[in-house]
Amino acid sequence: MLVEFGNTRVLCTASVTEGVPRWRKGSGLGWVTAEYAMLPRATHTRSDRESVKGRVGGRTHEISRLIGRSLRACVDLKALGENSIVLDCDVLQADGGTRTAAITGAYVALHDAVTWLAGRKALAGKPEKVMHRSVAAVSVGIIDGEPRLDLAYDEDVTAEVDMNVVCTGTGDFVEVQGTGESGVFARGQLDALLDLAVAGCDQLAGAQREALGR
Amino acid sequence: MLVEFGNTRVLCTASVTEGVPRWRKGSGLGWVTAEYAMLPRATHTRSDRESVKGRVGGRTHEISRLIGRSLRACVDLKALGENSIVLDCDVLQADGGTRTAAITGAYVALHDAVTWLAGRKALAGKPEKVMHRSVAAVSVGIIDGEPRLDLAYDEDVTAEVDMNVVCTGTGDFVEVQGTGESGVFARGQLDALLDLAVAGCDQLAGAQREALGR
Amino acid sequence: MLVEFGNTRVLCTASVTEGVPRWRKGSGLGWVTAEYAMLPRATHTRSDRESVKGRVGGRTHEISRLIGRSLRACVDLKALGENSIVLDCDVLQADGGTRTAAITGAYVALHDAVTWLAGRKALAGKPEKVMHRSVAAVSVGIIDGEPRLDLAYDEDVTAEVDMNVVCTGTGDFVEVQGTGESGVFARGQLDALLDLAVAGCDQLAGAQREALGR
Amino acid sequence: MLVEFGNTRVLCTASVTEGVPRWRKGSGLGWVTAEYAMLPRATHTRSDRESVKGRVGGRTHEISRLIGRSLRACVDLKALGENSIVLDCDVLQADGGTRTAAITGAYVALHDAVTWLAGRKALAGKPEKVMHRSVAAVSVGIIDGEPRLDLAYDEDVTAEVDMNVVCTGTGDFVEVQGTGESGVFARGQLDALLDLAVAGCDQLAGAQREALGR
Amino acid sequence: MLVEFGNTRVLCTASVTEGVPRWRKGSGLGWVTAEYAMLPRATHTRSDRESVKGRVGGRTHEISRLIGRSLRACVDLKALGENSIVLDCDVLQADGGTRTAAITGAYVALHDAVTWLAGRKALAGKPEKVMHRSVAAVSVGIIDGEPRLDLAYDEDVTAEVDMNVVCTGTGDFVEVQGTGESGVFARGQLDALLDLAVAGCDQLAGAQREALGR
Amino acid sequence: MLVEFGNTRVLCTASVTEGVPRWRKGSGLGWVTAEYAMLPRATHTRSDRESVKGRVGGRTHEISRLIGRSLRACVDLKALGENSIVLDCDVLQADGGTRTAAITGAYVALHDAVTWLAGRKALAGKPEKVMHRSVAAVSVGIIDGEPRLDLAYDEDVTAEVDMNVVCTGTGDFVEVQGTGESGVFARGQLDALLDLAVAGCDQLAGAQREALGR
Repeated sequence: MLVEFGNTRVLCTASVTEGVPRWRKGSGLGWVTAEYAMLPRATHTRSDRESVKGRVGGRTHEISRLIGRSLRACVDLKALGENSIVLDCDVLQADGGTRTAAITGAYVALHDAVTWLAGRKALAGKPEKVMHRSVAAVSVGIIDGEPRLDLAYDEDVTAEVDMNVVCTGTGDFVEVQGTGESGVFARGQLDALLDLAVAGCDQLAGAQREALGR
Repeated sequence: MLVEFGNTRVLCTASVTEGVPRWRKGSGLGWVTAEYAMLPRATHTRSDRESVKGRVGGRTHEISRLIGRSLRACVDLKALGENSIVLDCDVLQADGGTRTAAITGAYVALHDAVTWLAGRKALAGKPEKVMHRSVAAVSVGIIDGEPRLDLAYDEDVTAEVDMNVVCTGTGDFVEVQGTGESGVFARGQLDALLDLAVAGCDQLAGAQREALGR
Repeated sequence: MLVEFGNTRVLCTASVTEGVPRWRKGSGLGWVTAEYAMLPRATHTRSDRESVKGRVGGRTHEISRLIGRSLRACVDLKALGENSIVLDCDVLQADGGTRTAAITGAYVALHDAVTWLAGRKALAGKPEKVMHRSVAAVSVGIIDGEPRLDLAYDEDVTAEVDMNVVCTGTGDFVEVQGTGESGVFARGQLDALLDLAVAGCDQLAGAQREALGR
Repeated sequence: MLVEFGNTRVLCTASVTEGVPRWRKGSGLGWVTAEYAMLPRATHTRSDRESVKGRVGGRTHEISRLIGRSLRACVDLKALGENSIVLDCDVLQADGGTRTAAITGAYVALHDAVTWLAGRKALAGKPEKVMHRSVAAVSVGIIDGEPRLDLAYDEDVTAEVDMNVVCTGTGDFVEVQGTGESGVFARGQLDALLDLAVAGCDQLAGAQREALGR
Repeated sequence: MLVEFGNTRVLCTASVTEGVPRWRKGSGLGWVTAEYAMLPRATHTRSDRESVKGRVGGRTHEISRLIGRSLRACVDLKALGENSIVLDCDVLQADGGTRTAAITGAYVALHDAVTWLAGRKALAGKPEKVMHRSVAAVSVGIIDGEPRLDLAYDEDVTAEVDMNVVCTGTGDFVEVQGTGESGVFARGQLDALLDLAVAGCDQLAGAQREALGR
Repeated sequence: MLVEFGNTRVLCTASVTEGVPRWRKGSGLGWVTAEYAMLPRATHTRSDRESVKGRVGGRTHEISRLIGRSLRACVDLKALGENSIVLDCDVLQADGGTRTAAITGAYVALHDAVTWLAGRKALAGKPEKVMHRSVAAVSVGIIDGEPRLDLAYDEDVTAEVDMNVVCTGTGDFVEVQGTGESGVFARGQLDALLDLAVAGCDQLAGAQREALGR
């Protein structure tokens, strides 16, 4: 599925394989992992391909791990059974918030994959048990002293504080990552950002339910 | 620009940089190069990312080189002046003929880039001199003894002969690559395939002119 | 300097080079970066060397970037002048909290390096302006429903929530990274963890002042 | 065996292993593959070793794949049985046409290997069924408007069109690769080049028969 | 264990795994190997990490191989049984003679590992049969025409001849590596260096016995 | 030049470049380095290409370094002036003693290169000053208790002691590398091996003089 947030466009697909990596065989548990990448021209200035450079950069690794962790939080791996799902999040166009858009879109792709597995009777548990939570993510930040939701790229680079928040559909936290890019932040500011993020994620949870036809 | 041939979809973009690679500096000549890649889920079965494997595969290299060579054939590098253009061809969905679709689409992206450079008065020569030819490409093949145009993936793997042909808008050849995948081919068959390819490229040249608004 | 937190031992050194990387030359700004690594036998079970595997893993990259970002937050790069400082954090023995120990120790090594530069009159500004803040970091988590400071490795793997917090000496936040490793966390739990972390960092700031002989 | 064409010298050897790569086990089919490489001093100016650069270049890959494909065209993999043959083509001295010399020489090395396997009664079919065709290859080109056979390196770089043709001993095509290096080519020119290539391959087929003592 | 020779400090650890690499399975023989590395700040000037450079340098490889070979010389691999021991030698501080210090220290770590295996009744033979010899190593050299034992780094770089000698506890040779760094050496000089080395190793053998509590 | 010792065949070539690597510029000193490699089929059993494996192995590195060091010992780098010479030693066929054959042959190739530079008046000093020594190398070993010169491969793997010795034309040592492959060796055995090696090198020095036409 193609997720669009403002000018950010991320292609999220889920690929299902029967069976799990060797180190997990016989455990009865499934496996969910994610790979994030940017097309070279997703950004305003062309960046070199990581395949050509011969190594995946630190930022790419870090975001892939974040997406994988966030999505595993909404899946009961036992109910999934020994199936593997790879979530590919390829950024076609980037304008801030690519990692949070990827998480939000990957949830829908993952849900579709689980429904498809259910249709083939390949799950160990019931589908609603496999997907026992929804997750969505937003980026928030402080610009000119003001807390803001959904930073575009231009805002992102000038933000004093930049925070990515992953929430469940019921408003609990899965992941909170806040950085004082050019400065530090006080407890009061942190609280305001968290309020904003929770509200933003709640709205996305609604959009996800809609996309899944419920 | 997004090129679609049947179910094959390739995203072709041109990125312009002022200046040329170091080994070319001071020559007065521009540089045009191409990079081809497939998203992991472009094919029916997910393939591993080359960035994760840490090396660009032989097939990818070979196609990137073919695209670059074909596009350089339609550019007067002297008239381009010391500018570099990178053509990125990313296959979002693959159903046969991805390399020929990439060449055909990259021509349009390249033309746009040259027009943009002309608008900034950054070319050494006139734009119509820079782009002194058009190029388009098709894949043809022999299936069950019959010459065929535009093989889809299912046909491609069963083709006895598989041929990629790159032609100019005036019907000359830029590149001819024919392989007896499962068998060999006689001179008469080769001639029939070339006829078919020239006709196919001619049709694409018309579509390119249309896309460029002429 | 060798930092010890419980059974965790990290060797933190600062290396100073005159000048900055090429892309920064002439900017008048200095550069601070960090590299984190584990000896193969730092953990209970030997892990393979990344030099032998031929690539730095995602986790190592991620931690190196966190340490670098945290330390840059306490340095005025303009006052540092065009000097580069590399902070090497090598884990000799690991028992949880290696990244937060590395940040806390690297601050002291960085302070020493700046004092050494000051002694050679190589700074662009006054040393107290260069090091305008101190930083320290702790790991906190929830185990059996209880918020806890300074998780040892055994606790770390069983923690429901794991959070790394980097604070300045005056109690502001530089970085907050919280993950629901095996579960999610509510706002109230997050607040309790932050309280605990701020208090822990305050204590470390005192120890740092002592180590720096003030 | 050492192949010499003018000043081009290529060492072609065939290495036989019982069994096939894992993905092919149990298929009853054999496997033939090729690796092409140049010694650093094969060319007039020393080129860096690919082992030292840490990656096999695009050109090397492309030629290795071409050689492998061409040689598989003359082998019945079923009659070969589950044996693997690697053809190593190492260029000791290069003066144009290294890839076509490699194919022509590798055919003889392959034939010897099959005879050796026959002697050990390790083939699934009869040797003449395994090697049901011969292949040879030539490079042709257009220089100063003239079609030419067997380009030397000096000619190669100035050729307007450069074409490699692989033919069977009975004059059918296995592979046709033509490139307008500095220009394009008309259908008439292509036809003239093909005529020349077929005649050249026919002559080589005779030399191969002689080398194999028939 | 931490070995100190003058200002050289090397951390030597032995890691035991049950079983042997695949190519050795079923042979009844154990396996002993070594990995040597330097922390980036072990030397006076910081050197880049090999993990970051993406490849292990020639010098590192060479020393790792030397250590492995020397330690295998004192082990009866049959009596060790199918166990693998990896010796990690990490140089924390380097002031000449790091490879010989590593060998001398690794012997003690290896002895401890064998004793530990004996305690778990995991050896195929008796411990004193497994460790049927001791090994120790020294570096000797000629400086200003004078044979010298245990060169510090400053001496090492100015030495005319540099020699590493590995001896058993009974004065036999395991390995002799002598290089005329800036000059050549006559037979008489070689003899003098060997005398000095044998005496030095004998002294170390005593220290090793002491460290092992005998 | 092609060196043959028994069944060992090594192709040694010297490539001259004006100028030296960047780190050496302006020093007035030349540079001599060596690269050693084996063709995959040089040995009885085919070994994988290091270019395909993506890294140069430890053994290859070690031998390249040995050859480079040995050849630098016979060159006055100041008299060479700012010229670089790369010695490529490619083993076409291996039957023991490849590294010593490479050194012996590379000396002749190096001498030719220096003569060629002299002819172009590109040396800083006189040619006889540049090549102020000759070097040659042999492998010796102990088999069944007997010291032996020039081990073939079959002997090499069964040798109890294996030693490579590099000598000047006047019988001094440049490098001595002795290893107890399967056992240790006493001082008396070492002395016998050195005697044998010196005599062998002396004979080779004669052959080199002959090859150089003196």
